[in-house]
Amino acid sequence: MSVKSQGEAKEKTLIVVFGASGDLAQKMTFPSLFGLFKDGFLPPKTHIVGYARSDLERKKFEEQLTGGLDEKESKDKIEEFKKISTYVQGAYDEDDAFKNLESELQQMADKDLDGESHRIYYLAVPPSQFTSLADKLHKNNYKGITNRLVIEKPFGKDSASAKEMMEAITKDGWKQEEIYRIDHFIGDEMARSIMQLRFANELLIDSLFNKDKVASVLIELKETFGCEGRGGYFDEFGIIRDVLQNHSMQLLTFLTMDKPESLEEDHIRDEKVKVLKAIKPIKNDEAVMGQYIGNGDKEGYLEDETVENKESKTATFGEVVLRIDNDRWQGVPFLLKAGKAIEEDALRIVIQFKQPEKPLYPSEEPNELVIELYEKKVYFKINSKKPSMEGGIVRPEMILDYENKFDGLDAPQPYEFVIREVLKGNQKSFVREDELEEEWRIFTPLLHFCEGKDSPKPVEYKYGSNGPKESLEFDKKLGFVPTKDGYKLKNIDVTK
Amino acid sequence: MSVKSQGEAKEKTLIVVFGASGDLAQKMTFPSLFGLFKDGFLPPKTHIVGYARSDLERKKFEEQLTGGLDEKESKDKIEEFKKISTYVQGAYDEDDAFKNLESELQQMADKDLDGESHRIYYLAVPPSQFTSLADKLHKNNYKGITNRLVIEKPFGKDSASAKEMMEAITKDGWKQEEIYRIDHFIGDEMARSIMQLRFANELLIDSLFNKDKVASVLIELKETFGCEGRGGYFDEFGIIRDVLQNHSMQLLTFLTMDKPESLEEDHIRDEKVKVLKAIKPIKNDEAVMGQYIGNGDKEGYLEDETVENKESKTATFGEVVLRIDNDRWQGVPFLLKAGKAIEEDALRIVIQFKQPEKPLYPSEEPNELVIELYEKKVYFKINSKKPSMEGGIVRPEMILDYENKFDGLDAPQPYEFVIREVLKGNQKSFVREDELEEEWRIFTPLLHFCEGKDSPKPVEYKYGSNGPKESLEFDKKLGFVPTKDGYKLKNIDVTK
Repeated sequence: MSVKSQGEAKEKTLIVVFGASGDLAQKMTFPSLFGLFKDGFLPPKTHIVGYARSDLERKKFEEQLTGGLDEKESKDKIEEFKKISTYVQGAYDEDDAFKNLESELQQMADKDLDGESHRIYYLAVPPSQFTSLADKLHKNNYKGITNRLVIEKPFGKDSASAKEMMEAITKDGWKQEEIYRIDHFIGDEMARSIMQLRFANELLIDSLFNKDKVASVLIELKETFGCEGRGGYFDEFGIIRDVLQNHSMQLLTFLTMDKPESLEEDHIRDEKVKVLKAIKPIKNDEAVMGQYIGNGDKEGYLEDETVENKESKTATFGEVVLRIDNDRWQGVPFLLKAGKAIEEDALRIVIQFKQPEKPLYPSEEPNELVIELYEKKVYFKINSKKPSMEGGIVRPEMILDYENKFDGLDAPQPYEFVIREVLKGNQKSFVREDELEEEWRIFTPLLHFCEGKDSPKPVEYKYGSNGPKESLEFDKKLGFVPTKDGYKLKNIDVTK
Repeated sequence: MSVKSQGEAKEKTLIVVFGASGDLAQKMTFPSLFGLFKDGFLPPKTHIVGYARSDLERKKFEEQLTGGLDEKESKDKIEEFKKISTYVQGAYDEDDAFKNLESELQQMADKDLDGESHRIYYLAVPPSQFTSLADKLHKNNYKGITNRLVIEKPFGKDSASAKEMMEAITKDGWKQEEIYRIDHFIGDEMARSIMQLRFANELLIDSLFNKDKVASVLIELKETFGCEGRGGYFDEFGIIRDVLQNHSMQLLTFLTMDKPESLEEDHIRDEKVKVLKAIKPIKNDEAVMGQYIGNGDKEGYLEDETVENKESKTATFGEVVLRIDNDRWQGVPFLLKAGKAIEEDALRIVIQFKQPEKPLYPSEEPNELVIELYEKKVYFKINSKKPSMEGGIVRPEMILDYENKFDGLDAPQPYEFVIREVLKGNQKSFVREDELEEEWRIFTPLLHFCEGKDSPKPVEYKYGSNGPKESLEFDKKLGFVPTKDGYKLKNIDVTK
């Protein structure tokens, strides 16, 4: 399954964004390209081409191109960015349209790029369009020094459909090393730091990462926002395909993989796949699926007008337990939890450690290593002597708070990072085919169960609550101990 | 060697301070007693009695009593404190004087304490007076509900003299459980926290404390002040007896002892003694002794007018290496370093961890656990990904900073704590006889070598420097890696 990088697109690059008239392009793809452009991370002589079916006037296209930018961005930089961007209109399924695209691309290359160019085709379109676009592109536009195809999840809906899609794309002629499957969690600054946290502190930190030390692991993504306005998309996919099967699994593999032989991209991805292979498919009764209801103020999921099926069983909250069947992790439950319309916005990893059989201090609580990915904090929750005459145990943190520690912190946005990785040809920042296959293998039986004829109704939870009570009971059953003071960091008053 | 506590002096307590007209009493003993009084930590119905040979008028005595207090202290509290304090004048070697003292004490007891009292005799006098005072006190004043004798280092000058002194005191009739040998480092808030740091975080932190994980340990006490004005005392004792043989050894035992069976005082001290017993006496060539010279601004040690012997070889800086010959610590060098007239004031423990044989990130540096006792900070120095597009390794801390984390922090002064422990009868906060014996055993050969006929001259270092260069070479030889950025905590600029 080894896939070699194609090397870096150092200059003369054409980035073609399909779906240029759509939401994703405006909100995510173009702003990320602008961010890279502004900071000098696009290769010299890069042209950006927006492609879509709509007949957009230049002015409309420019709105698409820059409408997602922060108001504080420099006007001059925005003007420069517009100058390197062009819109091309065309169909997604007619060869002529792609021949026309090719002649436009060739003109740009002739004009500014000595006639040759690296080509990046970024598909910001619904997954149903992937194979057709991939086919047309390979036939008509596979003419760069290098040619890269960038796609985003969902990569299929289960094992079979994902396999089918991937086979279709490679049958079109695309090689694995040319396909970049984005999971933007890989580009998250804190997620990217997990490897160094573990393996650049091997005897100190990585030596804690095993069944002898760890009691359980929680990986949770909580969003205060529900599915308002996105019910159409969401109701088709649900929380498992939206988060658990891909984003949460990426975090899990970074946390649990063995030390790779080197930092070479396939050494890293080999270890990621190795740990995925050791995970059995989720059992139907080792999951809690929930759907939010209204809270008086906010509408419930089924009341949302964009959710057409008023009897939908699509889960907006999901928790599953994974077990890794290898020497390192045997017996440790990994709780993956994700939900919409929850009381806080958080992306959090909690590694809860075992306690000694005979504790010296009876009031000690479990140690934890907590990674707050949104808030950019890593800390050990420890038991410490209360600094006072009498003593007693308090629970402070030993913390690395990025905002406090690093001056000039301006960590790249996940999408900026991954697009830069496409330019560099760093496949390690993308989902390899076998990695995807394993992710689907683990979740497909549960998905089929939840979507089958006799599927159970998801349990209810209120908009803005902490999720279904069944989930907290589930945590408890699995031995996860909720810390008394939660994960809101606050000072400890030692006068009390 | 088991010594049982006598229980707490809960009320009716007479605290008699010998040497009441001296420096130590004014600067340390009385202010600590005032601190306890102010915070309500003295038992109800406590009387303080100052005793000395000088004929002090009441006014003079009150100056001794309160002259060492912070100007900000409440005037009212000071007045109340004066009211519970009395001065008694008398000789240190005549029974009549002690009979007179006894009748004064009895009067106080009769007046306010229903005729009975706990007795605490605190000897803030030069060690040459210890045995005589102990003898007179036992003969004439051993009449409390409980009777406690408090003494301070130096407890002798080497193994033989210490043994002699202790035998004399017990021969006088004092029982071991009545003798409280103060090493005020045991009362330091951060030193007291080491046990919880280790044993209330057993799988997380204590599991790092062994030869498989630790490369070396540094315990250093640096003082910017030299011996100005104290040359008389200092020249007799030197840096080993002033710091290394007692204070540094206390920190060492807290760091290296095994988990005690329980928190009972003798379980803890048994473990402390066990680890001391595993330490071989220091070899003469595993030590660096230094003496400071002038720097143009400040006088050198030998130029100080209070140092009479102008050819003195007394060390003002000392570094020794200890090795613990047990399963846990075999092979790990413990560097104990202490010096006067050094560039910073710091009391610091650095536990430097081993590195993997095949590091994944070539630029990683050793992990460290650092305890800053003066600054009240504990941190892991780790290797972390530089948060940026390109990455790279930076070295931030995961830190518990007491000043930042704990609201209302007002940790007791070490002397306040230990005096309170005398009142409570908590022998675990004092130096047990066998503990003292082991401390002397380890240092006596080196002391005899340094003070023998052919003793080498200490190496020179400049007032205000970082100590002798020989010491840094010595560290290096023993495998201690000086971190590039030292222990000054500062932010990391990630734009560079």
